[in-house]
Amino acid sequence: MASAVNPVIDRATVERIVRQVALEYLGRDSKGKSPELVVQASSRHMHVCREDMDVLFGPGSELTFDRPLFQEGNFAAKESVTIVGPRNRLISNLRILGPMRKQSQVELAFTDAIMLGFADIPVRLSGDIAGTPGAIIIGPKGVVELKEGLIRAAIHVHMNPAEAEYFSVKKGDVMKLRVGGPSGVTFNNVHVRIDPTSRLNVHMDTDEANACGLHLSKDVELFK
Amino acid sequence: MASAVNPVIDRATVERIVRQVALEYLGRDSKGKSPELVVQASSRHMHVCREDMDVLFGPGSELTFDRPLFQEGNFAAKESVTIVGPRNRLISNLRILGPMRKQSQVELAFTDAIMLGFADIPVRLSGDIAGTPGAIIIGPKGVVELKEGLIRAAIHVHMNPAEAEYFSVKKGDVMKLRVGGPSGVTFNNVHVRIDPTSRLNVHMDTDEANACGLHLSKDVELFK
Repeated sequence: MASAVNPVIDRATVERIVRQVALEYLGRDSKGKSPELVVQASSRHMHVCREDMDVLFGPGSELTFDRPLFQEGNFAAKESVTIVGPRNRLISNLRILGPMRKQSQVELAFTDAIMLGFADIPVRLSGDIAGTPGAIIIGPKGVVELKEGLIRAAIHVHMNPAEAEYFSVKKGDVMKLRVGGPSGVTFNNVHVRIDPTSRLNVHMDTDEANACGLHLSKDVELFK
Repeated sequence: MASAVNPVIDRATVERIVRQVALEYLGRDSKGKSPELVVQASSRHMHVCREDMDVLFGPGSELTFDRPLFQEGNFAAKESVTIVGPRNRLISNLRILGPMRKQSQVELAFTDAIMLGFADIPVRLSGDIAGTPGAIIIGPKGVVELKEGLIRAAIHVHMNPAEAEYFSVKKGDVMKLRVGGPSGVTFNNVHVRIDPTSRLNVHMDTDEANACGLHLSKDVELFK
């Protein structure tokens, strides 16, 4: 390697060569063998707990299946709510995703949070809502004042243990996702979530999808 | 180098080592010597030509200075317009940036374009508007139907020739911008624009700024 490095070669070339060599040393090929990668944008949405469901949609009410999501068992419900932020700004038609969870949680893009009047919402993994801001949620049958639960979901990848093995990653690791195209972007902190029922799938929010022009590019690459 | 690469070292480590070595070979240091880098988010805005100014704000009207922008001579004007997209959706208070230009042009984030009802707007450098979509623009004194001029501005960096020399780049090159923090992102296609009057300054749009949480991070690095 060292003999190939001289002041005439630019840094990008050096890095490309090294990447190839490293991949050979690591016994991997960047093409052909990867599990199929599905990258999706998640629009703002809410997860609801049993207690809040009772208030928002009536005692004992259940979520109504609208369409399946890519991860087994998850679905978009027909139900939606209105969220009211500071300074009484609101977003209506905030969709609920099922199934119900132990804690209610609202996932917003920064754009949504700014629109609602929040100066800041924290970037968190789903479920990690301690100390996050709350909001007023209005359903057809009642109103809930969430004490906490507003987050920007950190970009993350779902995978099963075999896929984790393939990528040599474990729970809690971060990976990188490169999206090509005219607005090419590499996301440097893609959190790894591993579950036996998962299908390989990156979830980003609408800000991230719009930043990289995800709708314009099929050229995506997940790596450590 | 090659002796340092073995199957136990992960790819990120290999890349980090190589980056250090490459920087030494290239005679650069990633800390301490770089020109100061200002990274800014540009909200949606319009540039207006003389003819459209006459229609929108009255014959012979001039833009009123509101506040200076970072690039010498550029300013946010007090004037704003309303843009009407397909399906009669609109965005009001679209700010005009001065000075006037030869061609009118509207720069939107993808989020804005989607809100207006555009399925797609092209990613272009400022000024390169041939074949782009148009829209109806409403000012206090009249209405202009732009035949073209709606773009998503490609992320770009302004610099002067000395800074271009420092980075070893020329007009038309693309560089990378890494933004750290919890939503860390590397923008892989940052277009280089060189002008003697320019100050080193990356312009991204609000989608890109919200994706990387630009307001949360002072850790930015521009490189080839």
